[in-house]
Amino acid sequence: MPNTDLLFEILHIQSTSGDESDMTDYLLRYIQKRMQTWKVLPKVYSGDNFHDCILLKFGNPRTAVFAHIDTIGFMVRYENQLVEIGGPEIIEGAKLFGFDRFGEIYCTLKGDENGLFHDFPRKIERGTRLSFAQDIRIDKDFIQAAYLDNRLGVYNAVKLCEEIEDGWVIFSTYEEHGGGSMPFLIDFIQKTSPIKQALISDITWITEGVVHHEGVVISIRDKFVPRKKFLDKIINLAELSGIPFQLEVEAFGGSDGREIQHSPYAIDWCFIGAAEDHVHTPHEKVSLKDLESMVSMYKYLLERL
Amino acid sequence: MPNTDLLFEILHIQSTSGDESDMTDYLLRYIQKRMQTWKVLPKVYSGDNFHDCILLKFGNPRTAVFAHIDTIGFMVRYENQLVEIGGPEIIEGAKLFGFDRFGEIYCTLKGDENGLFHDFPRKIERGTRLSFAQDIRIDKDFIQAAYLDNRLGVYNAVKLCEEIEDGWVIFSTYEEHGGGSMPFLIDFIQKTSPIKQALISDITWITEGVVHHEGVVISIRDKFVPRKKFLDKIINLAELSGIPFQLEVEAFGGSDGREIQHSPYAIDWCFIGAAEDHVHTPHEKVSLKDLESMVSMYKYLLERL
Amino acid sequence: MPNTDLLFEILHIQSTSGDESDMTDYLLRYIQKRMQTWKVLPKVYSGDNFHDCILLKFGNPRTAVFAHIDTIGFMVRYENQLVEIGGPEIIEGAKLFGFDRFGEIYCTLKGDENGLFHDFPRKIERGTRLSFAQDIRIDKDFIQAAYLDNRLGVYNAVKLCEEIEDGWVIFSTYEEHGGGSMPFLIDFIQKTSPIKQALISDITWITEGVVHHEGVVISIRDKFVPRKKFLDKIINLAELSGIPFQLEVEAFGGSDGREIQHSPYAIDWCFIGAAEDHVHTPHEKVSLKDLESMVSMYKYLLERL
Repeated sequence: MPNTDLLFEILHIQSTSGDESDMTDYLLRYIQKRMQTWKVLPKVYSGDNFHDCILLKFGNPRTAVFAHIDTIGFMVRYENQLVEIGGPEIIEGAKLFGFDRFGEIYCTLKGDENGLFHDFPRKIERGTRLSFAQDIRIDKDFIQAAYLDNRLGVYNAVKLCEEIEDGWVIFSTYEEHGGGSMPFLIDFIQKTSPIKQALISDITWITEGVVHHEGVVISIRDKFVPRKKFLDKIINLAELSGIPFQLEVEAFGGSDGREIQHSPYAIDWCFIGAAEDHVHTPHEKVSLKDLESMVSMYKYLLERL
Repeated sequence: MPNTDLLFEILHIQSTSGDESDMTDYLLRYIQKRMQTWKVLPKVYSGDNFHDCILLKFGNPRTAVFAHIDTIGFMVRYENQLVEIGGPEIIEGAKLFGFDRFGEIYCTLKGDENGLFHDFPRKIERGTRLSFAQDIRIDKDFIQAAYLDNRLGVYNAVKLCEEIEDGWVIFSTYEEHGGGSMPFLIDFIQKTSPIKQALISDITWITEGVVHHEGVVISIRDKFVPRKKFLDKIINLAELSGIPFQLEVEAFGGSDGREIQHSPYAIDWCFIGAAEDHVHTPHEKVSLKDLESMVSMYKYLLERL
Repeated sequence: MPNTDLLFEILHIQSTSGDESDMTDYLLRYIQKRMQTWKVLPKVYSGDNFHDCILLKFGNPRTAVFAHIDTIGFMVRYENQLVEIGGPEIIEGAKLFGFDRFGEIYCTLKGDENGLFHDFPRKIERGTRLSFAQDIRIDKDFIQAAYLDNRLGVYNAVKLCEEIEDGWVIFSTYEEHGGGSMPFLIDFIQKTSPIKQALISDITWITEGVVHHEGVVISIRDKFVPRKKFLDKIINLAELSGIPFQLEVEAFGGSDGREIQHSPYAIDWCFIGAAEDHVHTPHEKVSLKDLESMVSMYKYLLERL
C-alpha cells in the first residue's frame, strides 16, 4: 500500500503545464520537512533561476532521475470555448475545476475535437486554466484517479529520496505541453555535478504487450529510441534484481527523455515506470503491485548504475 | 501616424528567410545614422559571427525584445515550379518579384497547394527567391501591405530604441521558416549580459476574440504556453498603464518565443504585438491605433519589467 | 571504380539508429590501420564520452564534414509485430536479418503501413533490431544495395581523410531517427577547435530535376533553407572546380544540417551528396560517376572553403 498521505495530497493539487507553482511550493515544504530523515541529506536547488522546477543533489551523482510535476488540462479561450493544454482525452461530461479572479469554477466539458466548451453559467476570464475534477478510487489491487500521470512518477521520485545515496532527483515542468524546462535543468546538472545516465520516472500505457500486475515497465523505445548499450545494461540489472518488470516497444509517445536525447550532452536515458489504462482521462488506473515494483526498481538501479 | 519614411523603406526590402542580408544592411545604416539621437547609446553587435542578425545592448538589460526581419516567400524549383518559404497564403494571381543573375523578375503566382508555378516567360535560376510585390495602402485608420508581419514588429523595436534605457533589442532571422538564429542569439545574450525576461515584437491574428482598434495583443498562449507567473506580471502592468490592450488565447501559431521556451536558459517570454487580418498575403491589414498602442506598451513595459 | 573493399565491408555491417556500435568499432579499426598513410595525421576522439560517434580533427579546421553511420530498419514489438526505425519503405516480401540471444534471424517483411509483421517461425525477443538483408549489385555505371544512404556518405568522408589538411571529419549517429548526437558533437567541436562552416556528406533523391550521371548534388534547400550567402560561396567554387554538379531545390527531407541550423552556434551548413533512387529500400541505386564527383568535390571544397 502506498504512502497515501503524500499521494492523495499531490493528486489534489492543480498544476497544468506553465502553472506548476502550487505543486512546487508543496514539494518544497515536504522536502524541507522530511529530508532530515533521509539516508543522505540533499542539496536543494529551486527558486526563480529554476522557474518552477526543483533539483535535489544527493552525494556524488552518476545518474539523474526526472519526474515531471505538470499535468494536462484546458484553458479558457473566448466566450465559453476551451483549448487543450497537452493532450487530454475529450470525454463529454467530464467535470472540470479551476478558479479566476471572480472565484472558484466547477463546470462540465462539452463538445468534441472540433470544438470544446464549458457550461459554467458566468463568463470565465480568458486564459483561466481548468483541470479534471479529482476522484481518487483505491482498493487492494488498483489506484484510479486523474493525473496518476505523473503524480505516481513524482511519488516514486520522492520515495527514492528516502534511500538514495548518490544521484540527482529532478522535478521538471512543461512535459505535457512541448517541454522547455529540461534544457536548462540538464545544463545546470552538467555544469554542477555532471552525469552520463538518466531515468525518466513517468507513467506509460497498458497495451496488447504491457498488462497490469506484471511489474514496472522498462521502455525499449517510444517515438524515440534510447541507445541499445544503455538499455542492455539496465535490462541485465533488472533481471538480476528479481523485481518484476515488463519490456515495452512503442512507435509513439514521448517523455522528458526526448529532451535528453536532443541535449548538447552525451547522456544515456531510459523511461521506467508503471503502466496505466484510461490515459489522460479522469480515470487513469494503475496496479498497486506495478507501482511497488517501480519504487523498488528505482532504488535497486540507482545503487548499481 | 507612424514614421512612414522608415516603415515604407523596410516594407520595400526583400528578405525571405535565409536571405536577410539586404534588410540587415539597411538596419545597420539606419542605426548608425540615428543612434546618437537616442536616449542611451547602445553597443551594436553584428557581422559574420552573428550571421544576418543584429543585437543592440542598452544600459544594463533585464529584458530582451526580439523582432524577426525575415519574411515568407517562394523559391524557384525546377522548370516553372515554386516551393514555399515559410507559410504564404496561396492566392492565384498574386504578383511576385525577385531577381537572378539574368535580371529582375516580375511574375504571377499560379496553381494551388498541390502545385505552385510562376508564369515568367524565361527560365528562372534554381533557388531564386520571390516575394509578394509590395503595395502599401494607408489611410487614417489602417495600414495595409505585404509583410506587415513582421515589418511592424521591426518598426516597433526601432521606435523603442529611441527611449529604452536598459535592455536588449534584437533583430533575428529565420523565424518564418523553422527558426535557427534564436539559439545562438540567446546564447550570446546570456554570456554577455544575461536577462530573465523576453518580449516578442511580432504581429498576430485577428480572430473571433481579437479585433481591430481594441489595442495591442498580449498573448496568453499560442501553440506554446508561457509561464503564468510572467503573464500575470505583464498583465498587471498593462492594466496599470492605461494603454489599450487585448488578451489572446490560441491553440496554434508560434514565434521566436518557441525557441526561448526550449533554450537551455530559464528565461520567461511573452508575445506582444498588434493583430492583422489577411495574414501572410499581400494584403495584411493592421489598425494604426493598435500599432500605436504596441509602441506605447513596449516603452511602458521595458521601463518597468 | 570505388574502393570496393571498404565499401562492401561497411555495407554489410548492421547499425540501425541507436545501435551503431559495430559500425563504430569497424571504423575505428580502419582509421587506426590507415591513418599513418594519410597526408595529415588526425587527432581521434571516440569512446563513451561521445557515445557511438567518432570525431577526427585534421590540422586547423575551418569546416566540418558530417557523415551519419546509422541506418533505417525495424524493431520487433509484441508477438510477430514490427515497428519502424526511421522511415523504411514498406515492401511486402523484403528480406530482413538480425539476431537476438537465441541466435541469428532471417525472415520476411509482411503487412503494410497499417501493421507490420515478420514471419520468423520462433518468437523474437522484444526490441530486437532487424535490417534489410544486403544484396550488393555493381556494374560499370551503377552501384545498387541497401543502405547506400548513408554508407556512401561514410565512404566519401573516409576518402576525404586521405587528403584533407585542415578540417573536422565526423561520424554521427541517430540521423535516421530524430537525431540527437549532433548537439553534443557540435558543442564539442566548438569548444575544441571551432568552425563556421559545415558540409553534410549524405545521399539525396533522384527527382524530376536531379538525374543520374549529372554529378554530385549541391542542395539549395530541403525542408530547411541554408543561408544564401554560404550557398553562393559554395556554388561559385563548384563552378570554378570543373567537377560535374547539380542544384537541388526540395520542400521536404532533412539531414544532420537541421541540427546545425538549430544549434546555439552561428554555423553555416550545406548538404552535398550523390542522388539515389529507390530511397530507403533494399535497392538504393547510385551512379558511380556521381559518387566520383562527390568524392572530388569534397576534396576540392575542403581545401578552398
